[in-house]
Amino acid sequence: MRDALIAAAFQLFLERGYEATTVDDIVALAGVGRRSFFRYFPSKEDVVFPDHERCLADLTAFLAGSDEDDEPVARVCDAARLVLRMYAENPSFSVQRYRLTKSFPALRAYELSVVWRYERALAAYLRRRFAGWSDGDLRADVIAAAVVAAHNNALRSWLRSGGEDDAEAGVDHALRFVQDSWAPGGEDTGGGQPEDDVVVVITKRRTPLWRVVRELETQSDGA
Amino acid sequence: MRDALIAAAFQLFLERGYEATTVDDIVALAGVGRRSFFRYFPSKEDVVFPDHERCLADLTAFLAGSDEDDEPVARVCDAARLVLRMYAENPSFSVQRYRLTKSFPALRAYELSVVWRYERALAAYLRRRFAGWSDGDLRADVIAAAVVAAHNNALRSWLRSGGEDDAEAGVDHALRFVQDSWAPGGEDTGGGQPEDDVVVVITKRRTPLWRVVRELETQSDGA
Repeated sequence: MRDALIAAAFQLFLERGYEATTVDDIVALAGVGRRSFFRYFPSKEDVVFPDHERCLADLTAFLAGSDEDDEPVARVCDAARLVLRMYAENPSFSVQRYRLTKSFPALRAYELSVVWRYERALAAYLRRRFAGWSDGDLRADVIAAAVVAAHNNALRSWLRSGGEDDAEAGVDHALRFVQDSWAPGGEDTGGGQPEDDVVVVITKRRTPLWRVVRELETQSDGA
Repeated sequence: MRDALIAAAFQLFLERGYEATTVDDIVALAGVGRRSFFRYFPSKEDVVFPDHERCLADLTAFLAGSDEDDEPVARVCDAARLVLRMYAENPSFSVQRYRLTKSFPALRAYELSVVWRYERALAAYLRRRFAGWSDGDLRADVIAAAVVAAHNNALRSWLRSGGEDDAEAGVDHALRFVQDSWAPGGEDTGGGQPEDDVVVVITKRRTPLWRVVRELETQSDGA
């Protein structure tokens, strides 16, 4: 019944527009009562984003299941991949919804509130992991926002492609940019180097840190 | 009249709550007609955030007035400081509003949409500046989100302090974290050290880069 309500809602949204469609219209087309609708969806907005509650719960559980050995930035990137997978599971539905959401301010606002909840879940995990670091909360908030922005950049590219591109490859690439900024050692892409190989960097103290990091990255990438 | 409407609205929001206060209540207390209210504010939400439209316009103009010599990340950080200044101009009003916004989901949603507009304005500027870079749009989106997150982290700390702390110092510190991540050469905080002071880092190649960076940061902070 839940799927029938979603299908009916989208059929009407696309035919008549989102604002012009009422919950009564949706339940009439689906052949069920109003009460059934509200058993599944607290509001008309929720039928547009039927899987976010489950996905938020999955993401929260995934982060709660982390241990101390998990590199924190890599972990939140993996959490973001769960969200991407939810979209990629059903490309045509996700693309339809993207077009709908772009057109209606009420849906935009709803989407922003959902994105904000994902971001707070990532930040809460990072704040725990960075507890005791100087500026741990700041670092957590900034990295959570960066992960969400990178994910959304890749997700929107994929949605604009009509769901044709490789969604996972796009998100991997975008998240790599975030990991390179704050957890470049998180996954060693240099592979094959002896574990005790030593790197010596000699630099002037006033050299900007990013130049030193670039130099280190060049060295560890090898030739 | 605009200020009288804002004052009346806040008096009622604090006495009766936001939801229970109508536009009619506000205009009755301010002694003006409904039409006057809507001349200044499109909706009840807008009276809670009366200065954002002006601030968004200021920020957009500030970014449009940039030239090629401005380091882009420093420039968006300066743009974020304009927003902070709007809050800091009137601490008691900002603190009252913060408490109000925390309590009412409708105001939270409105605030998220405002924050999103600031973020898009910063990202649009950065996308222009990074045009032609590989991953320019991605870099722009991630840095814009990071600047907004850093700004909001510091702003919220200040608001939680009841507007007592030094708002500008807090935001400077938070934005420094973002600049150090992507534009560390923008402003050298190392001050006072001889320019040719040399740092030697010896590390195993498999050491995660973030550990090396932390070590370098410790060294350049001095004793």
